[in-house]
Amino acid sequence: MAKSVERLYTAMERLYTHGGDIYRNKVRYDFSVNVNPLGMPTKSIEAAKRAVELSDRYPDYMGEQLCARLSEAEGCRAGDIILGNGAAELIYSLCQSVKPKLAIIPSPAFKEYENAASASGAEVVRVCSNERDGFAFSARKLISQIYALRQEDARLLFLCNPNNPTGRLLDNEDLRRIAWVCEEKSITLLVDECFLPFCDAEEEHTMKHELECFKHMCVLRAFTKVYAMPGLRLGYLLTADSVLREGIRRQLQPWNTSLPAQMAGLAALEEKDYIMKARRLIAEGREYLSNELSAIGGISVYKSDANFILFSVEGRCMCDRAKPSYLYDRLLERGIMIRKCNDFDGLEFSRKRQFYRIAVRSRRENEELIKAVKEVL
Amino acid sequence: MAKSVERLYTAMERLYTHGGDIYRNKVRYDFSVNVNPLGMPTKSIEAAKRAVELSDRYPDYMGEQLCARLSEAEGCRAGDIILGNGAAELIYSLCQSVKPKLAIIPSPAFKEYENAASASGAEVVRVCSNERDGFAFSARKLISQIYALRQEDARLLFLCNPNNPTGRLLDNEDLRRIAWVCEEKSITLLVDECFLPFCDAEEEHTMKHELECFKHMCVLRAFTKVYAMPGLRLGYLLTADSVLREGIRRQLQPWNTSLPAQMAGLAALEEKDYIMKARRLIAEGREYLSNELSAIGGISVYKSDANFILFSVEGRCMCDRAKPSYLYDRLLERGIMIRKCNDFDGLEFSRKRQFYRIAVRSRRENEELIKAVKEVL
Repeated sequence: MAKSVERLYTAMERLYTHGGDIYRNKVRYDFSVNVNPLGMPTKSIEAAKRAVELSDRYPDYMGEQLCARLSEAEGCRAGDIILGNGAAELIYSLCQSVKPKLAIIPSPAFKEYENAASASGAEVVRVCSNERDGFAFSARKLISQIYALRQEDARLLFLCNPNNPTGRLLDNEDLRRIAWVCEEKSITLLVDECFLPFCDAEEEHTMKHELECFKHMCVLRAFTKVYAMPGLRLGYLLTADSVLREGIRRQLQPWNTSLPAQMAGLAALEEKDYIMKARRLIAEGREYLSNELSAIGGISVYKSDANFILFSVEGRCMCDRAKPSYLYDRLLERGIMIRKCNDFDGLEFSRKRQFYRIAVRSRRENEELIKAVKEVL
Repeated sequence: MAKSVERLYTAMERLYTHGGDIYRNKVRYDFSVNVNPLGMPTKSIEAAKRAVELSDRYPDYMGEQLCARLSEAEGCRAGDIILGNGAAELIYSLCQSVKPKLAIIPSPAFKEYENAASASGAEVVRVCSNERDGFAFSARKLISQIYALRQEDARLLFLCNPNNPTGRLLDNEDLRRIAWVCEEKSITLLVDECFLPFCDAEEEHTMKHELECFKHMCVLRAFTKVYAMPGLRLGYLLTADSVLREGIRRQLQPWNTSLPAQMAGLAALEEKDYIMKARRLIAEGREYLSNELSAIGGISVYKSDANFILFSVEGRCMCDRAKPSYLYDRLLERGIMIRKCNDFDGLEFSRKRQFYRIAVRSRRENEELIKAVKEVL
């Protein structure tokens, strides 16, 4: 490999802290990314292929059709939607628009919140949840942290519901209490609901119907996870704050969502039973994986409401204690990729305990994983 | 239409100042966007369709394969490449990274330079070229403007070569003289070469081989225009400045280029004769269109080196002088869309003179356009 290529890759690998790097690993079963185990809906694949043939034209910069259908599907106003090249893009443009001096992030959390906030010049304040409490989120701790900050500094709060990587849903009343505090303190609140459609209790937990009530709130959602189309990139942000919307749009090029993404998204919204089917598959698979993993000595499984599971392995189970990514490495040798969690705050690898996250996949894949974990430990 | 939808569209339409809005107009022939008249290469269409089927996985955040092939094709180091979701995204992330107090933009120019610079908080200084000189670019004027600015304020200069919408190539020596001034003054220089591959003299004019010499320079290129894939979104920026590269990457999500875009780009680079064929078609078409339009009374055609042509129509030719977009409106009634240029600085509509830009398309399309213009005027 040429030196400059090597230099590029080293720099990028250092920055990259996510699963799914199947391009530099041999992977048969990818448990490292949390997308719908049903795969992309056939109609979306077909629509995206048709869109490719039309891609000698620009995509609709308004995403008019998609926003209109999304507004029906989500029960919100089309005018409240901003489409993104994946939800990740919108995290960046939100930060670029708000330019907070401080950003508050409960941790452990999806790393892109911190990356985007730091890139926009923010200092990050972490509010850590505790392994002893199974990573249950403490609203009391968060709120007292908010009150302790200088009001003019804290401008942005990230909440992920259910949280990645812990899989825990926030308590409904807690969430609303925090949203009120954000209104009171004029803090922009991002509620990331990218995984919420996989939860049976979605309607009870979503904030998407309360945009008018919480003017400082944005709700983030993604086709990526729900319709398993991360390669196409499609997410959206909902907010009733027109000034914030205009601010975010100003940070985005006009044609940020591709034609295949828009058309795949439109087709996905026609798939009525797809999410229900996925929920059943995930609920079953989550129970199976949790039970099986818990039964293996030295593994602690944390309660999850989502389509992924966080677990830890005691150091004593590892043949080679000096190598902290022992389980990851051994599974990868078998073509199975799981998510090492050492880059999440509070989940650093130690000789005593190591954290991993796995997606819930199809029954057969889940069985393969359990079989391999048993072989390895 | 629901009120909120209407509100959204009004706000977005106000912001949008480009061609190609075929979604809210009936268009048979689109001369308003400047993409390759040959359309997307068949191999790219096929590759993008295959990529759609694989899009239940994330795209390679490194774009390793594409960067490796691009580095061969462009004769630059893979490590010097940043891939973008279209070139437009990179204009935004460059501004977000540099955060200039002042941005210098020769005008008339592609509107996204100003939009991106303003969104990043910059004040824009325009250096206008003159209609009397056929919009020829004055390096002398630009350089004296740079020297007149406070050094610490001016941090970013945009140059488009050939320039959009005027179609003029910059003089080679002028360009290098400006690049040296930027080195001396520590001004980041973006040389936008998105249309340069359509010019026979590409190799003579490109700055892509001089990245090492001009450390403050970025060269911007796009598959969008050259391989007619604006719906897929793929562009790239080249710079030898590793600090700037890291800064730009920090403003971007890791997965900014989709899998179909990456794979279509890879396939496009295998098309050896495609650009040569396009150049011949464009050279012929440009001559035909220029001659035919010039022969119509009241039309002035400006010299173009690119795949598009700027022309103006005298107000006296219009039946309805009160309606400044007369020619545009009449052509659109016939299903032909051209680019109104009234939103470019210095090209505002007046009763005396109105500016339009047309892409060079296939022979048949060009003939249809000329026929229609003759009918209308």
